[in-house]
Amino acid sequence: MAPVKVHGIPRSTCTMRVLAALSEKEADYELVMVNLMKGEHKQPPFLALQPFGVIPVIQDEDLTLFESRAIARYVADKYQNQGSSLYGESVTERALIEQGIEMEAQNFTPAGQPIFYQMVIAPMRGTPTNEAVVEESLIKFAKVLDIHEERLAKAPYLGGESFSLADLTHMPLTHYLIGLPKVSDVFRARKNVMAWWERISSREAWKKVTALSA
Amino acid sequence: MAPVKVHGIPRSTCTMRVLAALSEKEADYELVMVNLMKGEHKQPPFLALQPFGVIPVIQDEDLTLFESRAIARYVADKYQNQGSSLYGESVTERALIEQGIEMEAQNFTPAGQPIFYQMVIAPMRGTPTNEAVVEESLIKFAKVLDIHEERLAKAPYLGGESFSLADLTHMPLTHYLIGLPKVSDVFRARKNVMAWWERISSREAWKKVTALSA
Repeated sequence: MAPVKVHGIPRSTCTMRVLAALSEKEADYELVMVNLMKGEHKQPPFLALQPFGVIPVIQDEDLTLFESRAIARYVADKYQNQGSSLYGESVTERALIEQGIEMEAQNFTPAGQPIFYQMVIAPMRGTPTNEAVVEESLIKFAKVLDIHEERLAKAPYLGGESFSLADLTHMPLTHYLIGLPKVSDVFRARKNVMAWWERISSREAWKKVTALSA
Repeated sequence: MAPVKVHGIPRSTCTMRVLAALSEKEADYELVMVNLMKGEHKQPPFLALQPFGVIPVIQDEDLTLFESRAIARYVADKYQNQGSSLYGESVTERALIEQGIEMEAQNFTPAGQPIFYQMVIAPMRGTPTNEAVVEESLIKFAKVLDIHEERLAKAPYLGGESFSLADLTHMPLTHYLIGLPKVSDVFRARKNVMAWWERISSREAWKKVTALSA
Protein backbone atom coordinates (compact mmCIF):
# COMPACT_ATOMS: atom_id res chain seq x y z
CA MET A 1 0.00 0.00 0.00
CA ALA A 2 1.48 3.34 -1.06
CA PRO A 3 1.85 5.90 1.74
CA VAL A 4 -0.82 8.59 2.05
CA LYS A 5 0.33 11.83 0.41
CA VAL A 6 -0.30 14.85 2.65
CA HIS A 7 -0.02 18.18 0.86
CA GLY A 8 0.65 20.84 3.48
CA ILE A 9 3.25 22.28 5.82
CA PRO A 10 4.10 20.81 9.22
CA ARG A 11 3.61 24.04 11.19
CA SER A 12 0.07 24.72 9.87
CA THR A 13 -2.60 23.93 12.46
CA CYS A 14 -4.84 22.14 9.95
CA THR A 15 -1.96 20.09 8.53
CA MET A 16 -0.93 19.17 12.09
CA ARG A 17 -4.44 17.88 12.75
CA VAL A 18 -4.06 15.42 9.89
CA LEU A 19 -0.49 14.46 10.82
CA ALA A 20 -1.56 13.85 14.41
CA ALA A 21 -4.22 11.38 13.26
CA LEU A 22 -1.76 9.56 10.98
CA SER A 23 0.86 9.52 13.72
CA GLU A 24 -1.58 8.08 16.30
CA LYS A 25 -2.49 5.40 13.79
CA GLU A 26 1.16 4.63 12.96
CA ALA A 27 0.20 5.01 9.30
CA ASP A 28 2.77 5.58 6.55
CA TYR A 29 2.58 8.98 4.97
CA GLU A 30 4.58 11.24 2.72
CA LEU A 31 4.52 14.98 3.36
CA VAL A 32 4.39 16.99 0.13
CA MET A 33 5.41 20.55 1.03
CA VAL A 34 3.26 23.34 -0.40
CA ASN A 35 5.13 26.60 -0.88
CA LEU A 36 2.67 29.16 0.50
CA MET A 37 5.16 32.04 0.06
CA LYS A 38 5.20 31.33 -3.68
CA GLY A 39 1.40 30.99 -3.70
CA GLU A 40 1.46 27.34 -4.83
CA HIS A 41 -1.87 26.79 -3.04
CA LYS A 42 -3.58 29.25 -5.41
CA GLN A 43 -2.18 27.67 -8.59
CA PRO A 44 -4.14 25.24 -10.83
CA PRO A 45 -2.27 22.02 -9.86
CA PHE A 46 -3.13 22.55 -6.20
CA LEU A 47 -6.64 23.89 -6.91
CA ALA A 48 -7.37 20.70 -8.84
CA LEU A 49 -6.93 18.85 -5.54
CA GLN A 50 -8.36 21.47 -3.19
CA PRO A 51 -10.74 23.98 -4.84
CA PHE A 52 -10.75 26.41 -1.91
CA GLY A 53 -6.96 26.87 -2.20
CA VAL A 54 -6.10 26.01 1.39
CA ILE A 55 -3.96 23.30 2.97
CA PRO A 56 -4.10 20.42 3.71
CA VAL A 57 -5.39 17.91 1.18
CA ILE A 58 -4.53 14.21 1.01
CA GLN A 59 -4.24 11.69 -1.79
CA ASP A 60 -4.67 8.07 -0.86
CA GLU A 61 -4.76 5.72 -3.84
CA ASP A 62 -7.77 7.01 -5.87
CA LEU A 63 -9.16 9.20 -3.12
CA THR A 64 -8.49 12.94 -2.92
CA LEU A 65 -9.81 14.42 0.32
CA PHE A 66 -9.72 17.88 1.90
CA GLU A 67 -10.94 19.50 5.14
CA SER A 68 -8.69 18.50 8.03
CA ARG A 69 -11.42 17.16 10.29
CA ALA A 70 -12.90 15.03 7.50
CA ILE A 71 -9.40 13.65 6.83
CA ALA A 72 -8.82 12.93 10.53
CA ARG A 73 -12.10 10.99 10.67
CA TYR A 74 -11.17 9.09 7.51
CA VAL A 75 -7.78 8.13 8.96
CA ALA A 76 -9.49 6.96 12.17
CA ASP A 77 -11.94 4.82 10.17
CA LYS A 78 -9.48 3.45 7.62
CA TYR A 79 -6.90 2.37 10.20
CA GLN A 80 -9.50 1.25 12.71
CA ASN A 81 -7.47 -1.83 13.66
CA GLN A 82 -4.05 -0.28 14.13
CA GLY A 83 -2.52 2.34 16.45
CA SER A 84 -4.61 4.21 19.04
CA SER A 85 -8.37 3.90 19.04
CA LEU A 86 -9.61 7.40 18.14
CA TYR A 87 -13.29 7.11 17.32
CA GLY A 88 -15.00 4.97 20.01
CA GLU A 89 -16.62 1.56 19.78
CA SER A 90 -20.35 2.12 20.11
CA VAL A 91 -22.76 4.55 18.44
CA THR A 92 -23.04 6.49 21.71
CA GLU A 93 -19.28 6.72 22.20
CA ARG A 94 -18.87 8.00 18.67
CA ALA A 95 -21.66 10.55 19.21
CA LEU A 96 -19.88 12.03 22.22
CA ILE A 97 -16.60 12.14 20.30
CA GLU A 98 -18.38 13.95 17.46
CA GLN A 99 -19.79 16.41 20.00
CA GLY A 100 -16.22 17.07 21.18
CA ILE A 101 -14.96 17.59 17.63
CA GLU A 102 -17.78 20.07 17.02
CA MET A 103 -17.00 21.87 20.30
CA GLU A 104 -13.56 22.45 18.81
CA ALA A 105 -14.75 23.38 15.31
CA GLN A 106 -17.72 25.55 16.32
CA ASN A 107 -16.59 27.10 19.62
CA PHE A 108 -12.94 26.63 20.60
CA THR A 109 -11.38 27.47 17.23
CA PRO A 110 -13.71 30.36 16.27
CA ALA A 111 -12.81 32.01 19.62
CA GLY A 112 -9.10 31.08 19.59
CA GLN A 113 -8.20 31.50 15.91
CA PRO A 114 -8.38 35.34 15.92
CA ILE A 115 -5.98 35.38 18.91
CA PHE A 116 -3.56 33.08 17.06
CA TYR A 117 -3.86 35.21 13.95
CA GLN A 118 -3.28 38.51 15.73
CA MET A 119 -0.48 37.32 18.02
CA VAL A 120 1.39 34.87 15.75
CA ILE A 121 0.51 35.26 12.06
CA ALA A 122 0.19 39.07 11.87
CA PRO A 123 3.68 39.70 13.38
CA MET A 124 5.16 37.12 10.95
CA ARG A 125 3.60 39.15 8.11
CA GLY A 126 4.85 42.45 9.52
CA THR A 127 1.29 43.58 10.39
CA PRO A 128 0.64 45.14 13.81
CA THR A 129 -1.35 43.05 16.29
CA ASN A 130 -4.90 44.39 16.75
CA GLU A 131 -5.05 44.43 20.56
CA ALA A 132 -8.80 45.14 20.61
CA VAL A 133 -9.47 41.92 18.66
CA VAL A 134 -7.19 40.01 21.04
CA GLU A 135 -8.97 41.34 24.13
CA GLU A 136 -12.43 40.66 22.76
CA SER A 137 -11.47 37.15 21.62
CA LEU A 138 -9.81 36.35 24.95
CA ILE A 139 -13.11 36.99 26.73
CA LYS A 140 -14.93 34.61 24.37
CA PHE A 141 -12.12 32.06 24.55
CA ALA A 142 -12.14 32.06 28.37
CA LYS A 143 -15.88 31.32 28.35
CA VAL A 144 -15.33 28.36 26.00
CA LEU A 145 -12.52 27.06 28.21
CA ASP A 146 -14.85 27.27 31.23
CA ILE A 147 -17.02 24.67 29.56
CA HIS A 148 -14.03 22.48 28.77
CA GLU A 149 -12.91 22.85 32.40
CA GLU A 150 -16.30 21.70 33.64
CA ARG A 151 -16.41 18.70 31.29
CA LEU A 152 -12.84 17.70 32.12
CA ALA A 153 -13.77 17.68 35.82
CA LYS A 154 -16.11 14.78 35.01
CA ALA A 155 -13.97 12.77 32.56
CA PRO A 156 -10.26 12.76 31.66
CA TYR A 157 -10.85 13.36 27.94
CA LEU A 158 -13.30 15.47 25.94
CA GLY A 159 -14.95 12.42 24.38
CA GLY A 160 -15.11 10.53 27.70
CA GLU A 161 -12.80 7.98 29.30
CA SER A 162 -10.32 7.59 26.43
CA PHE A 163 -8.23 9.80 24.20
CA SER A 164 -10.01 10.34 20.87
CA LEU A 165 -10.47 12.64 17.88
CA ALA A 166 -12.34 15.00 20.24
CA ASP A 167 -9.03 15.78 21.96
CA LEU A 168 -6.85 15.46 18.89
CA THR A 169 -8.66 18.12 16.88
CA HIS A 170 -7.98 20.64 19.70
CA MET A 171 -4.23 20.00 19.82
CA PRO A 172 -2.69 22.13 17.05
CA LEU A 173 -4.27 25.41 18.11
CA THR A 174 -3.70 24.69 21.81
CA HIS A 175 -0.04 23.98 21.03
CA TYR A 176 0.37 27.53 19.75
CA LEU A 177 -1.96 29.38 22.12
CA ILE A 178 -0.86 27.91 25.44
CA GLY A 179 2.60 29.51 25.26
CA LEU A 180 1.43 33.04 24.40
CA PRO A 181 1.36 35.90 26.93
CA LYS A 182 -2.13 36.52 28.39
CA VAL A 183 -3.51 33.36 26.74
CA SER A 184 -1.24 31.28 28.90
CA ASP A 185 -2.90 32.83 31.99
CA VAL A 186 -6.33 31.81 30.69
CA PHE A 187 -5.15 28.21 30.44
CA ARG A 188 -3.28 28.18 33.77
CA ALA A 189 -6.37 29.40 35.63
CA ARG A 190 -8.15 26.15 34.68
CA LYS A 191 -6.54 23.16 36.34
CA ASN A 192 -8.48 20.37 34.62
CA VAL A 193 -7.69 21.85 31.22
CA MET A 194 -4.01 22.07 32.18
CA ALA A 195 -3.94 18.45 33.40
CA TRP A 196 -5.67 17.36 30.17
CA TRP A 197 -3.11 19.20 28.08
CA GLU A 198 -0.23 17.60 30.01
CA ARG A 199 -1.82 14.22 29.39
CA ILE A 200 -2.41 14.61 25.68
CA SER A 201 0.65 16.65 24.68
CA SER A 202 2.98 14.07 26.22
CA ARG A 203 1.75 11.38 23.81
CA GLU A 204 4.53 9.96 21.63
CA ALA A 205 2.47 10.45 18.46
CA TRP A 206 2.09 14.16 19.20
CA LYS A 207 5.81 14.63 19.98
CA LYS A 208 6.55 13.25 16.50
CA VAL A 209 4.21 15.83 14.93
CA THR A 210 5.65 18.84 16.75
CA ALA A 211 9.22 17.63 16.06
CA LEU A 212 8.54 18.17 12.33
CA SER A 213 8.22 21.94 12.79
CA ALA A 214 10.65 22.38 15.72
CA MET B 1 -38.27 2.91 22.77
CA ALA B 2 -39.14 6.42 23.93
CA PRO B 3 -39.07 9.11 21.24
CA VAL B 4 -35.96 11.30 21.04
CA LYS B 5 -36.55 14.62 22.80
CA VAL B 6 -35.40 17.56 20.69
CA HIS B 7 -35.11 20.84 22.62
CA GLY B 8 -35.28 23.67 20.09
CA ILE B 9 -37.60 25.61 17.82
CA PRO B 10 -38.69 24.46 14.36
CA ARG B 11 -37.63 27.63 12.52
CA SER B 12 -34.04 27.61 13.87
CA THR B 13 -31.54 26.47 11.24
CA CYS B 14 -29.65 24.23 13.67
CA THR B 15 -32.84 22.67 15.01
CA MET B 16 -34.01 22.09 11.42
CA ARG B 17 -30.77 20.21 10.70
CA VAL B 18 -31.58 17.75 13.47
CA LEU B 19 -35.27 17.48 12.51
CA ALA B 20 -34.29 16.81 8.89
CA ALA B 21 -32.10 13.88 9.94
CA LEU B 22 -34.85 12.43 12.16
CA SER B 23 -37.43 12.96 9.42
CA GLU B 24 -35.27 11.21 6.77
CA LYS B 25 -34.83 8.30 9.18
CA GLU B 26 -38.56 8.17 10.00
CA ALA B 27 -37.58 8.23 13.66
CA ASP B 28 -40.01 9.13 16.44
CA TYR B 29 -39.24 12.38 18.16
CA GLU B 30 -40.83 14.87 20.50
CA LEU B 31 -40.11 18.56 19.99
CA VAL B 32 -39.66 20.40 23.30
CA MET B 33 -40.04 24.11 22.55
CA VAL B 34 -37.46 26.42 24.08
CA ASN B 35 -38.73 29.95 24.69
CA LEU B 36 -35.86 32.09 23.41
CA MET B 37 -37.81 35.34 23.95
CA LYS B 38 -37.97 34.51 27.66
CA GLY B 39 -34.30 33.50 27.66
CA GLU B 40 -34.99 29.90 28.66
CA HIS B 41 -31.81 28.83 26.84
CA LYS B 42 -29.71 30.87 29.29
CA GLN B 43 -31.38 29.43 32.41
CA PRO B 44 -29.89 26.63 34.56
CA PRO B 45 -32.27 23.82 33.46
CA PHE B 46 -31.31 24.32 29.81
CA LEU B 47 -27.63 25.01 30.56
CA ALA B 48 -27.47 21.68 32.38
CA LEU B 49 -28.21 20.05 29.01
CA GLN B 50 -26.34 22.48 26.76
CA PRO B 51 -23.57 24.45 28.49
CA PHE B 52 -23.13 26.97 25.65
CA GLY B 53 -26.77 28.06 25.98
CA VAL B 54 -27.76 27.50 22.35
CA ILE B 55 -30.34 25.27 20.69
CA PRO B 56 -30.71 22.42 19.85
CA VAL B 57 -29.87 19.65 22.26
CA ILE B 58 -31.35 16.15 22.29
CA GLN B 59 -32.08 13.62 24.99
CA ASP B 60 -32.27 9.99 23.92
CA GLU B 61 -32.61 7.56 26.82
CA ASP B 62 -29.43 8.24 28.87
CA LEU B 63 -27.68 10.26 26.20
CA THR B 64 -27.69 14.07 26.16
CA LEU B 65 -26.12 15.42 22.98
CA PHE B 66 -25.62 18.90 21.52
CA GLU B 67 -24.12 20.39 18.34
CA SER B 68 -26.50 19.92 15.42
CA ARG B 69 -24.01 18.19 13.10
CA ALA B 70 -22.95 15.74 15.82
CA ILE B 71 -26.63 14.97 16.43
CA ALA B 72 -27.32 14.49 12.71
CA ARG B 73 -24.41 12.02 12.49
CA TYR B 74 -25.69 10.20 15.58
CA VAL B 75 -29.18 9.90 14.10
CA ALA B 76 -27.69 8.56 10.85
CA ASP B 77 -25.65 5.95 12.74
CA LYS B 78 -28.31 4.96 15.26
CA TYR B 79 -31.03 4.43 12.65
CA GLN B 80 -28.66 2.97 10.09
CA ASN B 81 -31.18 0.33 9.03
CA GLN B 82 -34.28 2.48 8.62
CA GLY B 83 -35.30 5.39 6.41
CA SER B 84 -32.93 6.98 3.89
CA SER B 85 -29.28 6.02 3.87
CA LEU B 86 -27.48 9.21 4.91
CA TYR B 87 -23.90 8.26 5.70
CA GLY B 88 -22.54 5.98 2.95
CA GLU B 89 -21.58 2.33 3.01
CA SER B 90 -17.80 2.24 2.68
CA VAL B 91 -15.01 4.13 4.44
CA THR B 92 -14.39 6.11 1.24
CA GLU B 93 -18.06 7.02 0.78
CA ARG B 94 -18.24 8.21 4.36
CA ALA B 95 -15.04 10.27 3.91
CA LEU B 96 -16.55 12.15 0.96
CA ILE B 97 -19.76 12.74 2.90
CA GLU B 98 -17.70 14.11 5.80
CA GLN B 99 -15.89 16.38 3.35
CA GLY B 100 -19.28 17.69 2.20
CA ILE B 101 -20.45 18.30 5.78
CA GLU B 102 -17.23 20.23 6.48
CA MET B 103 -17.68 22.26 3.28
CA GLU B 104 -20.98 23.37 4.80
CA ALA B 105 -19.65 23.94 8.34
CA GLN B 106 -16.35 25.60 7.39
CA ASN B 107 -17.19 27.44 4.16
CA PHE B 108 -20.86 27.65 3.18
CA THR B 109 -22.27 28.62 6.58
CA PRO B 110 -19.46 31.03 7.64
CA ALA B 111 -20.05 32.92 4.38
CA GLY B 112 -23.86 32.65 4.37
CA GLN B 113 -24.70 33.09 8.05
CA PRO B 114 -23.85 36.84 8.20
CA ILE B 115 -26.20 37.41 5.23
CA PHE B 116 -28.97 35.50 6.98
CA TYR B 117 -28.33 37.43 10.18
CA GLN B 118 -28.33 40.84 8.53
CA MET B 119 -31.29 40.24 6.22
CA VAL B 120 -33.55 38.06 8.38
CA ILE B 121 -32.64 38.16 12.08
CA ALA B 122 -31.66 41.85 12.41
CA PRO B 123 -34.99 43.14 10.96
CA MET B 124 -36.88 40.75 13.29
CA ARG B 125 -35.02 42.37 16.19
CA GLY B 126 -35.66 45.87 14.92
CA THR B 127 -31.97 46.42 14.09
CA PRO B 128 -31.04 47.97 10.72
CA THR B 129 -29.43 45.65 8.16
CA ASN B 130 -25.71 46.37 7.75
CA GLU B 131 -25.53 46.55 3.94
CA ALA B 132 -21.71 46.57 3.92
CA VAL B 133 -21.63 43.22 5.73
CA VAL B 134 -24.20 41.84 3.28
CA GLU B 135 -22.19 42.98 0.23
CA GLU B 136 -18.90 41.62 1.58
CA SER B 137 -20.47 38.31 2.58
CA LEU B 138 -22.23 37.95 -0.77
CA ILE B 139 -18.86 38.05 -2.54
CA LYS B 140 -17.49 35.30 -0.29
CA PHE B 141 -20.70 33.31 -0.57
CA ALA B 142 -20.67 33.44 -4.38
CA LYS B 143 -17.11 32.04 -4.39
CA VAL B 144 -18.18 29.16 -2.18
CA LEU B 145 -21.16 28.45 -4.43
CA ASP B 146 -18.81 28.37 -7.44
CA ILE B 147 -17.14 25.36 -5.87
CA HIS B 148 -20.47 23.70 -5.15
CA GLU B 149 -21.48 24.39 -8.76
CA GLU B 150 -18.34 22.70 -10.06
CA ARG B 151 -18.77 19.66 -7.83
CA LEU B 152 -22.45 19.33 -8.69
CA ALA B 153 -21.52 19.28 -12.38
CA LYS B 154 -19.72 15.98 -11.69
CA ALA B 155 -22.19 14.30 -9.32
CA PRO B 156 -25.85 14.90 -8.41
CA TYR B 157 -25.17 15.25 -4.68
CA LEU B 158 -22.42 16.81 -2.59
CA GLY B 159 -21.31 13.46 -1.17
CA GLY B 160 -21.47 11.73 -4.57
CA GLU B 161 -24.19 9.65 -6.24
CA SER B 162 -26.69 9.62 -3.38
CA PHE B 163 -28.38 12.06 -1.06
CA SER B 164 -26.56 12.15 2.29
CA LEU B 165 -25.72 14.21 5.36
CA ALA B 166 -23.47 16.30 3.10
CA ASP B 167 -26.58 17.70 1.40
CA LEU B 168 -28.80 17.64 4.46
CA THR B 169 -26.55 19.88 6.57
CA HIS B 170 -26.77 22.59 3.86
CA MET B 171 -30.57 22.60 3.72
CA PRO B 172 -31.74 24.86 6.57
CA LEU B 173 -29.61 27.87 5.64
CA THR B 174 -30.28 27.39 1.91
CA HIS B 175 -34.02 27.30 2.66
CA TYR B 176 -33.81 30.83 4.09
CA LEU B 177 -31.18 32.33 1.78
CA ILE B 178 -32.51 31.20 -1.58
CA GLY B 179 -35.63 33.37 -1.34
CA LEU B 180 -33.87 36.61 -0.35
CA PRO B 181 -33.30 39.53 -2.76
CA LYS B 182 -29.74 39.57 -4.21
CA VAL B 183 -28.94 36.16 -2.67
CA SER B 184 -31.54 34.60 -4.92
CA ASP B 185 -29.61 35.95 -7.94
CA VAL B 186 -26.41 34.29 -6.70
CA PHE B 187 -28.21 30.95 -6.59
CA ARG B 188 -30.02 31.37 -9.90
CA ALA B 189 -26.77 32.09 -11.72
CA ARG B 190 -25.59 28.54 -10.91
CA LYS B 191 -27.68 25.95 -12.69
CA ASN B 192 -26.28 22.82 -11.07
CA VAL B 193 -26.80 24.28 -7.62
CA MET B 194 -30.38 25.15 -8.56
CA ALA B 195 -31.07 21.65 -9.91
CA TRP B 196 -29.57 20.17 -6.74
CA TRP B 197 -31.80 22.35 -4.57
CA GLU B 198 -34.90 21.35 -6.56
CA ARG B 199 -33.91 17.71 -6.07
CA ILE B 200 -33.28 17.84 -2.34
CA SER B 201 -35.93 20.36 -1.26
CA SER B 202 -38.67 18.26 -2.88
CA ARG B 203 -37.93 15.32 -0.59
CA GLU B 204 -40.93 14.33 1.54
CA ALA B 205 -38.84 14.32 4.72
CA TRP B 206 -37.83 17.94 4.12
CA LYS B 207 -41.38 19.06 3.38
CA LYS B 208 -42.37 17.72 6.80
CA VAL B 209 -39.64 19.79 8.46
CA THR B 210 -40.53 23.07 6.77
CA ALA B 211 -44.25 22.48 7.42
CA LEU B 212 -43.49 22.74 11.16
CA SER B 213 -42.54 26.40 10.85
CA ALA B 214 -44.83 27.37 7.96
